[in-house]
Amino acid sequence: MDTRTGLPLVGMVGGGQLARMTHQAAIALGQSLRVLAVAPEDGAALVVADVHLGHHTDLAALRAFAKGCDVVTFDHEHVPGEHIRTLAAEGVTVHPSADALRYAQDKRAMRERLTGLGLPAPRWRPVASTEDVVALAGETGWPVVAKAVRGGYDGRGVWQLRDAGEAAALVGTGTALIVEERVPLRRELAALVARSPFGQVAAYPVVETVQRDGICVEVLAPAPDLSEERAVAAQQAAIGIASALGVVGLLAVEMFDTGDELLVNELAMRPHNSGHWTIEGARTSQFEQHLRAVLDYPMGDTALTAPAVVMANVLGGEPGGMSLDERLHHLFAADPAIKVHLYGKQVRPGRKIGHVTALGEDLAAVRARAASAARLLREGVTA
Amino acid sequence: MDTRTGLPLVGMVGGGQLARMTHQAAIALGQSLRVLAVAPEDGAALVVADVHLGHHTDLAALRAFAKGCDVVTFDHEHVPGEHIRTLAAEGVTVHPSADALRYAQDKRAMRERLTGLGLPAPRWRPVASTEDVVALAGETGWPVVAKAVRGGYDGRGVWQLRDAGEAAALVGTGTALIVEERVPLRRELAALVARSPFGQVAAYPVVETVQRDGICVEVLAPAPDLSEERAVAAQQAAIGIASALGVVGLLAVEMFDTGDELLVNELAMRPHNSGHWTIEGARTSQFEQHLRAVLDYPMGDTALTAPAVVMANVLGGEPGGMSLDERLHHLFAADPAIKVHLYGKQVRPGRKIGHVTALGEDLAAVRARAASAARLLREGVTA
Repeated sequence: MDTRTGLPLVGMVGGGQLARMTHQAAIALGQSLRVLAVAPEDGAALVVADVHLGHHTDLAALRAFAKGCDVVTFDHEHVPGEHIRTLAAEGVTVHPSADALRYAQDKRAMRERLTGLGLPAPRWRPVASTEDVVALAGETGWPVVAKAVRGGYDGRGVWQLRDAGEAAALVGTGTALIVEERVPLRRELAALVARSPFGQVAAYPVVETVQRDGICVEVLAPAPDLSEERAVAAQQAAIGIASALGVVGLLAVEMFDTGDELLVNELAMRPHNSGHWTIEGARTSQFEQHLRAVLDYPMGDTALTAPAVVMANVLGGEPGGMSLDERLHHLFAADPAIKVHLYGKQVRPGRKIGHVTALGEDLAAVRARAASAARLLREGVTA
Repeated sequence: MDTRTGLPLVGMVGGGQLARMTHQAAIALGQSLRVLAVAPEDGAALVVADVHLGHHTDLAALRAFAKGCDVVTFDHEHVPGEHIRTLAAEGVTVHPSADALRYAQDKRAMRERLTGLGLPAPRWRPVASTEDVVALAGETGWPVVAKAVRGGYDGRGVWQLRDAGEAAALVGTGTALIVEERVPLRRELAALVARSPFGQVAAYPVVETVQRDGICVEVLAPAPDLSEERAVAAQQAAIGIASALGVVGLLAVEMFDTGDELLVNELAMRPHNSGHWTIEGARTSQFEQHLRAVLDYPMGDTALTAPAVVMANVLGGEPGGMSLDERLHHLFAADPAIKVHLYGKQVRPGRKIGHVTALGEDLAAVRARAASAARLLREGVTA
């Protein structure tokens, strides 16, 4: 408890934009988020009062950080499970637990567990040697998709392999891998749910995530042209996974929509890029929801605030020309209703530096506004 | 400029809930608000990274605070005008300026200026002696309303005087006063506008403010049963005042609705309690709007996000029984869609410790939800 206010003290490991936006939600709940940041210039460290500097793989830093927290949670998946287990054994409440988080940290464990739960997934195999890759390709045809068991995100740690030669080269690097069929997908969806220790689960409307070069560039909420039946099935799958794995906090389930069925692609157990639209687009933002879940408050309403909500990620553009601040002036003049979230990061080409959200009645119009805004912030031009 | 991000650095003098909520808005714009707080336990100081401790009447503290800020602004009206003039003369950009802020600091100056602008107002007089009070009462009848020229708020600095004896007792205290007729009002309204240095003005929908014991307890947005004509007149009056006084930032104009006309009651030049509903209830919150205005960004959309929005202030209740945190659990269980804002203050009976906002289609239903939520947080019961 924060003795100054009588309200809970939540510690979040990681000082990125997820912690930064969680702090905004914490403020409304009367709290002040404590953050473990690697560097003082981390996005959250720039705006949070209670910052500990230290590395998330350093047990001593984690212990000092956790002291006095009612609950410790995460803005990324990179805290070693054994450290989380040690903290828990020493009496720290950690959500999600090491047992749950394992399935967001280890793709092989995730695939084995979800297969055990009978959930539809791409055909896959663990990779001990090149022969495993070739064997799967024998069933599915080339190319196949290799994934690092640990640590990949935003397109990193994922490789398309066209033949046995490419497979051998990758396997030769010694990276622990699984291999999956390359699914002929129509689009990608995401189902976001939050689960409390009590076991209450709240599901957000299912969204479509639009990827480019392995990076999510747009999220459409709700997912257009998704049947009620299919949407409910996606939510039920996410709820089932959250309950089966004992997730506390948010769970984002990324899915492939093949047209015929929904296949589980990835899991994340934290606020997720596919849920940024909820800040303005849902009654309860994913950041507030995550805090409510890990604190065992009753869950907030997940209803949409508008018929169509579109979030577009803002990537850093080439330097030169207009500064980011000048671009912001132009954007606000062009679209007074656009909502901007900047993460306090130095602009570098291709780096995710923020996002924009547009809301309205008509998806096509809303999507055009969001795309135009993201482009203006990235390139300084709209057309 | 904040060299870490290339984005502006705004300094806000005062560490209360207005700075606290402005920080939430600053984070989205890629900024980190700098706050001058009197004490480390001030609501904003608990959540802001860049806190200076010092008093707002201490010129040296103000100078040190202002160093490096692109603009300095305020969460209250208590900075002496001569200090603001000194900072401005030394090259600090301060919004609103001392010349504008004077009319929110000095009720006599405000009444003289608005009278000069020809705006409808209660009949009033400056008070040099008891005879001035008696003379006004001779025109309007007793009781009359005496107001401290400086420093009153939330019902403090306002007195109803029933006769010459009460007037003499108050005048005898030496407090600088004005006296006004007691207006037979139907209700109170507030018109909130923001004005940029460029001169762009954005007006929010006019709201009804419901007072109890001189404290605002509820805000209804938009004001029910207000004709379009009357609403536009109120917005035009606020825009006219903002332009005439050269206000930069927010201007809240509190008005008496007598049924026949709208009379200007008070001015505030900062985010205002009558605008807290905008966080969820308008496309652009008043806190973001204030930042945009003082930074000369184009103004944000002020449209409502729902047909009916009600904000209710949460006052501290009697200690004992449930803690505030327990009350929050019960509230979230009772109303998953209620939005809560707590200010990080120790609970004391009658102290404003937060607010709640409800949105929906039907004003009566929305108002009942907000009132019920505020009562649950204050008293631990709803009925």
